[in-house]
Amino acid sequence: MSLAGPINDELAAWDRDCLLHPTTHTANHARGDVPGRIVTGGKGVHIEDRDGNRFLDAFAALYCVNVGYGRTEIADAMNDQAQKLAYFHAFAGHGNEPAITLARLIMDRAPEHMARVYFGLSGSDANETNVKLAWHYNILRGKPEKRKIISRWRAYHGSGIVSGSMTGLKAYHARFHLPLEGFLHAATPHYLRRDDATLSEAAFTDRLIADLEAMMLSEGPETIAAFIGEPVMGTGGILPPPEGYWGRVQELLDRYDILLISDEVVCGFGRTGSMFGATHYGLKPDFMTIAKGLTSAYAPLSGSVISQRVFDVLMQGSDDFGALAHGWTYSAHPVSCAAGIATLNLVDELGLLGNASSTGPYLLQRLRDAVGSHPNVAEVRGVGLMAAVEFMEDPGTFKWFEPPMSMSGKISAAMLRRGVIARPMPEGDIIGFAPPLCITPQEVDQVVEALQGAVQEVLG
Amino acid sequence: MSLAGPINDELAAWDRDCLLHPTTHTANHARGDVPGRIVTGGKGVHIEDRDGNRFLDAFAALYCVNVGYGRTEIADAMNDQAQKLAYFHAFAGHGNEPAITLARLIMDRAPEHMARVYFGLSGSDANETNVKLAWHYNILRGKPEKRKIISRWRAYHGSGIVSGSMTGLKAYHARFHLPLEGFLHAATPHYLRRDDATLSEAAFTDRLIADLEAMMLSEGPETIAAFIGEPVMGTGGILPPPEGYWGRVQELLDRYDILLISDEVVCGFGRTGSMFGATHYGLKPDFMTIAKGLTSAYAPLSGSVISQRVFDVLMQGSDDFGALAHGWTYSAHPVSCAAGIATLNLVDELGLLGNASSTGPYLLQRLRDAVGSHPNVAEVRGVGLMAAVEFMEDPGTFKWFEPPMSMSGKISAAMLRRGVIARPMPEGDIIGFAPPLCITPQEVDQVVEALQGAVQEVLG
Repeated sequence: MSLAGPINDELAAWDRDCLLHPTTHTANHARGDVPGRIVTGGKGVHIEDRDGNRFLDAFAALYCVNVGYGRTEIADAMNDQAQKLAYFHAFAGHGNEPAITLARLIMDRAPEHMARVYFGLSGSDANETNVKLAWHYNILRGKPEKRKIISRWRAYHGSGIVSGSMTGLKAYHARFHLPLEGFLHAATPHYLRRDDATLSEAAFTDRLIADLEAMMLSEGPETIAAFIGEPVMGTGGILPPPEGYWGRVQELLDRYDILLISDEVVCGFGRTGSMFGATHYGLKPDFMTIAKGLTSAYAPLSGSVISQRVFDVLMQGSDDFGALAHGWTYSAHPVSCAAGIATLNLVDELGLLGNASSTGPYLLQRLRDAVGSHPNVAEVRGVGLMAAVEFMEDPGTFKWFEPPMSMSGKISAAMLRRGVIARPMPEGDIIGFAPPLCITPQEVDQVVEALQGAVQEVLG
Repeated sequence: MSLAGPINDELAAWDRDCLLHPTTHTANHARGDVPGRIVTGGKGVHIEDRDGNRFLDAFAALYCVNVGYGRTEIADAMNDQAQKLAYFHAFAGHGNEPAITLARLIMDRAPEHMARVYFGLSGSDANETNVKLAWHYNILRGKPEKRKIISRWRAYHGSGIVSGSMTGLKAYHARFHLPLEGFLHAATPHYLRRDDATLSEAAFTDRLIADLEAMMLSEGPETIAAFIGEPVMGTGGILPPPEGYWGRVQELLDRYDILLISDEVVCGFGRTGSMFGATHYGLKPDFMTIAKGLTSAYAPLSGSVISQRVFDVLMQGSDDFGALAHGWTYSAHPVSCAAGIATLNLVDELGLLGNASSTGPYLLQRLRDAVGSHPNVAEVRGVGLMAAVEFMEDPGTFKWFEPPMSMSGKISAAMLRRGVIARPMPEGDIIGFAPPLCITPQEVDQVVEALQGAVQEVLG
């Protein structure tokens, strides 16, 4: 469906010759074997490339453009700030109006027991801040040995060295010396992946909790600083937790004096239909990691939202030892914070939490109706406006396709030919959906029809 | 010199109640004991705050606003892109015009042997990318044990867990479990800080090189992946290297098959008068870390520029194992890259390398003339448009003021009262200068006069 225009061959050559793309086959790209797609515009749930193709983006780029593309209100707010003052640092008490105002807006939305926000740029750096501050907190209160971090297999918390150590996907570890020592992984809370097919969901949760407690006791709770989790696992496959899971994890953390880092990079600001995943599941985190939805990706911005009990110790630390020695140059960047203010206002004005609460279940139901009874569909799952369809060669005997992603890659390619972007998730054959939160039921219908056609084309 | 306006008390309260500032005394700020300064605008080398104060910023915020404040060309370029397409990801070969064009501009400026740029957001994350890729490179070529990183005391490479491990300033380590194991620190290449006062500068360099080689041999070169260094140390005190230092470091690295990471966050794009610190000192890096000057901080953006020999191995890695599993959501952010293009064009159009080469030596000479013979001045040093004045209680006997920063904090405060921002650097009594690269000789005169007055006021 190429509609237009001359291809700028120079641009394609520059791309191959100069740019190392994230999570791309380096050699194929350099050789020109990965077809580049240069994205030039977008509106609502649609993007356009420079060749005139138009796609319905049912993954909101990387679950981040929650308010949709082409929101000139955000671009205008960024421009107003950039014309006045693009940058000054926020060190040593300096500040700027957008950063302060956005901090207020975030704290107004955060759970009551949260105290402050520290701004970063990416979910990865915010998670690194959280680990650094969890260590600092324990050192300051005389428990330096309390420093291990428990994450979970299939978690995604970033692709840095520390954030990647917390990620629980093997491709992010292999050939990178990851995970670093002291970063542990508990079992994935995904009922479909239970070892014992006869377990009920309640019994599966019991086993997860028992195994987690056994890990804590065998490591020694006095050596464990924090547990990190996405309220709903994202990149691991869009995995809503099994019934009762989070309440019982929280009980363990309280019992053993272990901090909770709720990674809200995907869930935060409405993806689940609630403001945060933590509020959706009744968690009481000590750190909330926010990014993506905070600015709908219009500008890079992340944050660590910190609980009062952690902040109290940080304050005592400053009184005892001086300024907190943690600073990113671009912490509280004025233009990024202006984007954040405009985004959070749009989330309210467009009623996006409400839409996630109503259109999300509609998406899930439509997916179930369309492919739920297909013989290769093992599960259709979701919460709010995140959903996934997982495929197996034979769900009855838990026989997975080999190698992983062999079918999901084909299905997503077939969807793309139908004008819809969905994401093949790693470590399995999973098609993920996380559209802009402004998606309409009619657009959901297009997404589901594309999936249905693609499944029929690929799997029959 | 407050000129204007009602103070928005609500904003000040929100700031205290909601925002955790970088590198700030947490408790004093929360109690309102740190006077906030809300910066609202700027033009050229000047900033203004919301109380109507105006300052000549002789540190370019944090050595980053190299083209000066209020450059509407950059804001306009960001706005043009944000109105068209604020964001789409660059994963799996996707791209956008500004990212590709900026990659081309960077590679045009980088040394010939450099092959690709990977975009990040901050110097910290780019340095983390460099370490991750240095590990990956060695694993891929069958040398997984080659993973230690040698940095130097007084280095600044970021304040994350890995980047902070490479930083060599004690405040960034204390009470954070840093440095991590495997991150070593060689001696600071600062002649003034030599242990033995009788050494000549050449003999001092000999000793640094002998000590560095001894460290490599005692650790075992087969365990060392990379050496990281700022061509001119920045936060450590603005320390141009002693004569002959870099050429001889490079020889050691070549001899022992150790990669060089040139951290160009401060030096890059003209600060030294050359395009990069590496070109200024004739280095052949495998990684160049770029940030700050890349966008003049108008938008968050960093990059890892990677050599051909490293890139060749990465390509082989993709052929053997698939896509490079390293991806920041905001890698190659279109709006940030648009800011980068406009900035690099301005650096050329305004002739900022030339100005750093001519006005830099003028600044150094004026500083020497003004305070060089003051009895408490131990050294006036600099290169290009970075300079520092270091104070001691008695330079003749190497007697430092105690505690460190006791005088420099007072001097910078006295300069601020004279309308000029300069930076008291950590671990010593050092006033640092790194103004926008567009500073004029007349503005340099104002900076030097402010220093002279402040020194007289504080030290007599």
